[in-house]
Amino acid sequence: MAGCCQRLRLDDGAREDARQRLRSVRGHVDGILKMLDHPDTYCVDVLKQIKAVQGGLDRVGGLVLRAHLRDHVTTANERGDVEEMVEELMEVLKYR
Amino acid sequence: MAGCCQRLRLDDGAREDARQRLRSVRGHVDGILKMLDHPDTYCVDVLKQIKAVQGGLDRVGGLVLRAHLRDHVTTANERGDVEEMVEELMEVLKYR
Amino acid sequence: MAGCCQRLRLDDGAREDARQRLRSVRGHVDGILKMLDHPDTYCVDVLKQIKAVQGGLDRVGGLVLRAHLRDHVTTANERGDVEEMVEELMEVLKYR
Amino acid sequence: MAGCCQRLRLDDGAREDARQRLRSVRGHVDGILKMLDHPDTYCVDVLKQIKAVQGGLDRVGGLVLRAHLRDHVTTANERGDVEEMVEELMEVLKYR
Repeated sequence: MAGCCQRLRLDDGAREDARQRLRSVRGHVDGILKMLDHPDTYCVDVLKQIKAVQGGLDRVGGLVLRAHLRDHVTTANERGDVEEMVEELMEVLKYR
Repeated sequence: MAGCCQRLRLDDGAREDARQRLRSVRGHVDGILKMLDHPDTYCVDVLKQIKAVQGGLDRVGGLVLRAHLRDHVTTANERGDVEEMVEELMEVLKYR
Repeated sequence: MAGCCQRLRLDDGAREDARQRLRSVRGHVDGILKMLDHPDTYCVDVLKQIKAVQGGLDRVGGLVLRAHLRDHVTTANERGDVEEMVEELMEVLKYR
Repeated sequence: MAGCCQRLRLDDGAREDARQRLRSVRGHVDGILKMLDHPDTYCVDVLKQIKAVQGGLDRVGGLVLRAHLRDHVTTANERGDVEEMVEELMEVLKYR
């Protein structure tokens, strides 16, 4: 797997950015958990918050994907791992 | 807003189920945050974890949506708030 | 299946609207097929057109879904087919 | 735009494959249009067919995306158009 090589690691800037955004996602999840402690919580309010968290996760994913394309996918032909990089990426994008 | 009425609240069983699943989502987000503390983390491993969390959130959303349809949407005509219930639901589904 | 009853049919206005939009989707698909006849077609231009067609289909789906919620789902409790209507709808939304 | 260069064109095999699948998508769309000619058509049956067509379009998109990644994105660093290729691709993936 390409993941084993130290060269192929998430760029430091993107990693720090992803952490910050993911902390905000976690805070949002905590907020929904608090909503669910209240017996009067309305379904649609929960659904709205879940969509907001999914939007936040999409942004983290976009950030990491962009760094991966830029740093690893566009250089695959030079490294000689085109096949693996493409399969691996298609697998992750399948769930989008 | 329909959300104001006490009758329209998330079913207790579904609410407890959503809490349990959302706690597991939060644990998963914490796991990704730990991954991001390591400078060697590989992009695609982060993307895989994000997809897994999104799958977990989809399941929480599906649970709440099912309870909402069953308890509130299918009874809208009797309550006389068809228009509001439909608009509100379409709004939430738009982001799926 | 709820689909068997004549009462449960797509509203005439929504049906005509869906037809018009779907004809436009078909025209768009024909356009992509013409693009693919050209050996010089660029991948990303095809991907852009596919996304546009998917947007068009989403709008047709939204139109039909709204009519279904309004005319059939919100009256399910009166008809006594809540369970079937909810299951059937969750099944279709699963693929969103 | 990268699309201008003749080198950057959809691989012949993938192009022919995409055409075949897209013809099948068009046939499916024609089928839904025929359904909509019948006044008794049930909403959920239309929604099911729309999801099936979206699945077909996803497969065409996946085919084209894979060829694009393999033939153009993984060689971007050698060509010197990393920035453009990444932006262009992120733009298309945004709508997924």
